[in-house]
Amino acid sequence: MPPRTKYDIISEIAKRRGFFWPSFEIYGGMSGYVTYGDLGTKLKRNIEALWKEHFVRKQGFLELDDPIVNPERVFEASGHLQSFKEYSSECSQCGRSFRADHLVEDKTGMENVEAMGGDAVKRLLLEHKVRCPVCGGELKEPTLFLTMFKTEIGATGGEVGYARPETAQAMFLNYRWGFQHAREKLPFALAQCSKVMRNEISPRRGMVRLREFTIMELELFFDPQEPGCPWFDEVRDTPIKLHTEKMETEDVKEPLETTVGEAVERGLILTEWQGYFMGVSQRFITALGMPPEKQRFRAHLPDERAHYSAQTYDHEVFFETWGWIEVSGCAYRTDYDLRSHMEASGVDMTVLREDGSRYLPHVVEPSYGLDRLFLSVLEATYERRKRRNVFHLPRELAPYQVAVFPLVTKDGLPEKAREVYDLLLDEGLWVVYDEAGSIGRRYARVDEIGVPLAVAVDYDTRDGDVLTIRDRDSWEQVSLSLGDLAGRLGEYYRGEREFRELGSPVVRG
Amino acid sequence: MPPRTKYDIISEIAKRRGFFWPSFEIYGGMSGYVTYGDLGTKLKRNIEALWKEHFVRKQGFLELDDPIVNPERVFEASGHLQSFKEYSSECSQCGRSFRADHLVEDKTGMENVEAMGGDAVKRLLLEHKVRCPVCGGELKEPTLFLTMFKTEIGATGGEVGYARPETAQAMFLNYRWGFQHAREKLPFALAQCSKVMRNEISPRRGMVRLREFTIMELELFFDPQEPGCPWFDEVRDTPIKLHTEKMETEDVKEPLETTVGEAVERGLILTEWQGYFMGVSQRFITALGMPPEKQRFRAHLPDERAHYSAQTYDHEVFFETWGWIEVSGCAYRTDYDLRSHMEASGVDMTVLREDGSRYLPHVVEPSYGLDRLFLSVLEATYERRKRRNVFHLPRELAPYQVAVFPLVTKDGLPEKAREVYDLLLDEGLWVVYDEAGSIGRRYARVDEIGVPLAVAVDYDTRDGDVLTIRDRDSWEQVSLSLGDLAGRLGEYYRGEREFRELGSPVVRG
Repeated sequence: MPPRTKYDIISEIAKRRGFFWPSFEIYGGMSGYVTYGDLGTKLKRNIEALWKEHFVRKQGFLELDDPIVNPERVFEASGHLQSFKEYSSECSQCGRSFRADHLVEDKTGMENVEAMGGDAVKRLLLEHKVRCPVCGGELKEPTLFLTMFKTEIGATGGEVGYARPETAQAMFLNYRWGFQHAREKLPFALAQCSKVMRNEISPRRGMVRLREFTIMELELFFDPQEPGCPWFDEVRDTPIKLHTEKMETEDVKEPLETTVGEAVERGLILTEWQGYFMGVSQRFITALGMPPEKQRFRAHLPDERAHYSAQTYDHEVFFETWGWIEVSGCAYRTDYDLRSHMEASGVDMTVLREDGSRYLPHVVEPSYGLDRLFLSVLEATYERRKRRNVFHLPRELAPYQVAVFPLVTKDGLPEKAREVYDLLLDEGLWVVYDEAGSIGRRYARVDEIGVPLAVAVDYDTRDGDVLTIRDRDSWEQVSLSLGDLAGRLGEYYRGEREFRELGSPVVRG
Repeated sequence: MPPRTKYDIISEIAKRRGFFWPSFEIYGGMSGYVTYGDLGTKLKRNIEALWKEHFVRKQGFLELDDPIVNPERVFEASGHLQSFKEYSSECSQCGRSFRADHLVEDKTGMENVEAMGGDAVKRLLLEHKVRCPVCGGELKEPTLFLTMFKTEIGATGGEVGYARPETAQAMFLNYRWGFQHAREKLPFALAQCSKVMRNEISPRRGMVRLREFTIMELELFFDPQEPGCPWFDEVRDTPIKLHTEKMETEDVKEPLETTVGEAVERGLILTEWQGYFMGVSQRFITALGMPPEKQRFRAHLPDERAHYSAQTYDHEVFFETWGWIEVSGCAYRTDYDLRSHMEASGVDMTVLREDGSRYLPHVVEPSYGLDRLFLSVLEATYERRKRRNVFHLPRELAPYQVAVFPLVTKDGLPEKAREVYDLLLDEGLWVVYDEAGSIGRRYARVDEIGVPLAVAVDYDTRDGDVLTIRDRDSWEQVSLSLGDLAGRLGEYYRGEREFRELGSPVVRG
């Protein structure tokens, strides 16, 4: 048996404690689908809220929420019907289908075969005599497979519809509303967090390639003659690690260590807006718990880039189990999408400049896979410590903010602990109450689900309203009076107070 | 032209200001789909958060997030493949399809024809000689149409899947995880807020009947031998208006005015858990701005009830335009679902009692249509006042919490106002900045999008750090010093301070 990977370990905890697990298990499962439990649903929501803090609220960008299923003409215009395809190889013996580039990768150990283009994939399949990985049968000639889910809208003679594979089209379809709402002044942005679906041919790697997942996406519209970003100074000096298109082509392994400002000046990043969002992106991913040294930006090669993109930088993070994985892409979509929809719909989308000239706005798009970010948070914050599992979740992300334990289940301590629990609920906190097993076991249980603070209710609490709070990260304890508890926890979660400032140090005997 | 209804008025504002509008407009639209703009996305999110406050956080119930598309066997087991159907009539001339019961309603003025059952619908169509409402052509014999969206998962020879029309099945599929997580103790509950899809034959009434919408649903599992709800006392004396099954059968128009406690005692509500959730439901809908006198609970007739339900009470609210509309259903699903999935999957779902006997838990389900709640909020809070539009949104729901205006755009006031804006952003508030047009017009604009408070920056602010805050609801003003602003607004939004307690009254000259 192969040794357990870090992903195996995290998956085991995730399933046992309720972060996530494979869907439809009682019916034998279905690859590419994942179920989030109580902790997972909350953690995902908190990541989404933090994304909004970094990308929406402070900039005053506009939000949007558009349907998942769209009529066919949307994807005709967007180019997806033509281009959102992968090479699929069917086994002539068992009938199973596989993604052709992945078959080549598995057989040869090559990386990123998709980026080499369709002809290369076909050639490599033949050259390496790849056979069915399940039954060993001969593979048929690979064919292009449209990886969007198709359905029919309405009763008899209804219209063909597809589930969208990205949320971006919604921003283009509703661009004119955004333009009006922004009082016809550019730049402005439309942002959306929503489910998307991709009919992956043969999903692998559990959570990394899902058929249904959540995207957090933002389209920034700007005048290509006025490409400056007003907040660029905020990120100009941010150090980043870059793998440019040229470096990728020449197979340079070591990243270029530069700053956002320098990369834009040297033309390695095409626009200030991309640079801005890449800088914010690094700040955001770092706030999720992933240190900058485990982050890099890698440019797509021309064959790898989506049909709409002039330049795309993937933001990648390092997973112990798989190496570098893309969690975000920052694409320069130019005016491709607005032009396509303008032509297909006949609706004018041009903007009038003060000098009387007309233009189509250009678009920069930072896009996040929420499910991969979720996995990155678990990867980044997991620690095995003295035979315990600890998730050092940042306090803004913790599904439960505080735990309340009676020291023992007698002498009125559970009743007192329930009072403390109710008090904290009334403060609007997410609270765990636990009285089962030794207090050491209970601390271990909340460490494993990333609860930052645990409040112990003991005889001093019952007799003198004095409580002990324990820190998940340092395992240190402080004591404070019940009257101070709610206010100080509020300050702690607003980032106005650190753990050691919650009370007086407790020296364990 | 018919007079504009309240729904017309609200829809016009909604589109112009960015609450919602019909989707895919640049491609001619597609009925049954709606797009939420910036205000709509935020308002919807805030309603969801308030639902969690009322139904999840305080009770310590568990959350879940499961895929939208499910393999066919799930819906075979759940009974949806058999039962989730409507009668559809196709026009033999133009080929359009219509929902047969709606055709009858439109022709005859009858209500709730669906509840009379399929045979009655067929008979009424013939009796009333209903013809195609679009071209006047003859209608074909109505046939049952499965109103779930169908798709195929995977490449060649993939599996059939359907988009779920409700989220409940997820709670049954993952029931065993919930049971473990609850340490094998009942009662416990699983809650989920997620998109669902229904392939409506002929959607009408804009936002009321959508093909894609969001459901907030909770399944409470309990031992039928121990049916007590520990929080029942909280709702026992809540007055409610009931239309029982018997009253509906006998066509009694006036509601029964009773209390939750009495209704459960008299057997009009079958279980304490239903009673509890109906009481919480009334509290929740009232917190959304809808007064109790515009709420009622109406029992489903046997033919109207879903295939799984022993009793369902719809929670209805009154819309000026349409009359009573269901926004929620509280169903007693018994052990129907767990039994069906246990039989179909072969997985044991029984629970062991202390006395050694085994049983299947029973289920009570309060379920909300988020999009209809959204519309209820706009309906309940809209006021036409002195030729202005005002949405009196509860402060927890307001998409933007505060607006900042410089009195004039000169003399350094915009710079000072920007400082105030940045300060409030740093406090974590959603803030609007506006300097266009007269201050009166700016107040009118934020009234129309429901911003509770507007801060005016004038010469006193520039010279003495004194600000004026205006209340959306009363149009009163108070003044306070800049140093107090952030703290007091924080208290206002936590419900710890009312408008008049924000500063000293300003008497307008």
